[in-house]
Amino acid sequence: MTMKVLGYAAQSADAPLAPFEFMRRTPRPDDVVIEVMYCGVCHSDLHQARNDWGFSQYPLVPGHEVVGRVASIGSNVTKFKPGDYAGIGCMVDSCRTCHPCKEGLEQYCEEGNVQTYNGVDRHDHQPTYGGYSQTIVASEDFILKMPEGMDLKGAAPLLCAGITTWSPLRHWNVGKGSKVAVIGLGGLGHMALKLANAMGAEVTLFTRSASKEADARRLGAHHIVLSTDETQMASVKNQFDLIIDTVPYDHDINPYMPTLTLDGTLVYVGLLGNIEPPVSTLPLILGRRSVAGSCIGGIKETQEMLDFCGEHGIVSDIEMIKIPEINEAYERMLKSDVKYRFVIDMATLK
Amino acid sequence: MTMKVLGYAAQSADAPLAPFEFMRRTPRPDDVVIEVMYCGVCHSDLHQARNDWGFSQYPLVPGHEVVGRVASIGSNVTKFKPGDYAGIGCMVDSCRTCHPCKEGLEQYCEEGNVQTYNGVDRHDHQPTYGGYSQTIVASEDFILKMPEGMDLKGAAPLLCAGITTWSPLRHWNVGKGSKVAVIGLGGLGHMALKLANAMGAEVTLFTRSASKEADARRLGAHHIVLSTDETQMASVKNQFDLIIDTVPYDHDINPYMPTLTLDGTLVYVGLLGNIEPPVSTLPLILGRRSVAGSCIGGIKETQEMLDFCGEHGIVSDIEMIKIPEINEAYERMLKSDVKYRFVIDMATLK
Repeated sequence: MTMKVLGYAAQSADAPLAPFEFMRRTPRPDDVVIEVMYCGVCHSDLHQARNDWGFSQYPLVPGHEVVGRVASIGSNVTKFKPGDYAGIGCMVDSCRTCHPCKEGLEQYCEEGNVQTYNGVDRHDHQPTYGGYSQTIVASEDFILKMPEGMDLKGAAPLLCAGITTWSPLRHWNVGKGSKVAVIGLGGLGHMALKLANAMGAEVTLFTRSASKEADARRLGAHHIVLSTDETQMASVKNQFDLIIDTVPYDHDINPYMPTLTLDGTLVYVGLLGNIEPPVSTLPLILGRRSVAGSCIGGIKETQEMLDFCGEHGIVSDIEMIKIPEINEAYERMLKSDVKYRFVIDMATLK
Repeated sequence: MTMKVLGYAAQSADAPLAPFEFMRRTPRPDDVVIEVMYCGVCHSDLHQARNDWGFSQYPLVPGHEVVGRVASIGSNVTKFKPGDYAGIGCMVDSCRTCHPCKEGLEQYCEEGNVQTYNGVDRHDHQPTYGGYSQTIVASEDFILKMPEGMDLKGAAPLLCAGITTWSPLRHWNVGKGSKVAVIGLGGLGHMALKLANAMGAEVTLFTRSASKEADARRLGAHHIVLSTDETQMASVKNQFDLIIDTVPYDHDINPYMPTLTLDGTLVYVGLLGNIEPPVSTLPLILGRRSVAGSCIGGIKETQEMLDFCGEHGIVSDIEMIKIPEINEAYERMLKSDVKYRFVIDMATLK
């Protein structure tokens, strides 16, 4: 009983996304079938559609910020019932037995987690297709419960942008008394401001554009530092316990390093590539500072993040689009012309 | 009552070290006057004598691995009495009031610590001169007690090479059950092997030269991994909690990063400069790994390290030289022709 479903796919690196019919697998005993209601549009959707990272398989159906309604469940499913609101983020499976998986950190699975799209299922070895589609099927262990009463449109980006900033904030113990800075005000950056603020931290946005000040303050920043202004940069020397770097393209992190306090950490969440220009070891050695990275978050912490957002009334700031507008939305993302995340209304896929 | 003392100094970046007479300050109430018996020869002595880092002031008297006998004490000194064996490492003062100083981490003083040589005294604003000299004067708060019965010749390098590797091992909580790797087998590397082994860790040496195996095992390594052998490198994927990188020149750390476990850290202790070739963020993000730095160690932890070495019978492996041989020793260091640290017998300075 495989299901024929409609989605939007890239057929090659230089083709625009277009309607595509494909089969979803017969649900297994632990599977949940979800009718997709909303799907957030992540920068990596664009990178993968265009094979920017060199490992795209076509046809490619993007989408890993998926919110929908449970349509049916497998015989062993206990966490969900038809009609429940459910979410899927960047992963749909992992080995479940390695040390990181056992700790609930499936994103760091030593065998590699199975990505929601452009991945390969561990059982039937078929490609995985993402949330730009009517329906998605996955194991209940990788499906999130949407908190009661949450705005589901704004919630979709929590499943990638939200958890990607939440996980490092939690891992580096941000809370009352912490000083956190965020580099970049996009999909990830605006979530980092909201979450760090709600956790009780004193929050600073580093930006190159003074015009972002009002928005940054509305989103949760207590301070704005113009990274192009040497006096402002010098005034925050030795300040921050954690800097969340959300910038997805090459940029020089050396000016930010001295703003970390002793034992402070700059954590990359947006850039996959070489650190260029190269970072100097001097601020590392002279302040025992660290440069680290963090990848999305585990299923358990994703649920914690959703529950926290439910309690604190946090969702992403979004712009809704119809699915035929997706190619135009990609072009606007390339110009950072979105506040702060596109979300596709999947009811527009017919 | 300033003292005229004899030492060895570089008069310029391209002059060899040669005898030099200069004045030591009149001891202050908290000062201790030490007759230097032994002085270790650190790579940074050579770099600073030759102005490789661009901030050398001449004349420059190197030496920051200083062991000697207390000759006299100021009126307020309580920790030392004449005849005691005492040591001085890389620092002789700091602001003593900033957050790192209050935590006993004077090496990270926010105003900058006062280096034992090529520094400037905070009170009289005179240059500091190091341990390649008959006598040295410093505040008791920056002077270490040498443990009873310790071999003082081999102890001299503990004051820089020892504490520089001890501090990150302690900070990153190395102990029984830890897996530690060391890159580079020189003055720092051989101390890292000895200390990590004595702390109870499982210790691996990364090296490009199989000929170092016997020596590495004698010094405390349980395993040797040839970093040029891809099969050996792949066999230690996701293994190490901490990698201590002691290499003082440009080298590619990308091959080592996947050998760190989830949340593992590679810590630079030997290289001051840009990370080139650039390191990729991929192994950082995909394993929440960190690249960090660590600088010598605070006075309190230096005393702990000396006491630990006293209990465990640990000193550096050294080759004694006479002070007229110092220029030749520098040339040999450039060729890594020393096992593993030169120590100057200061009785040869007449």
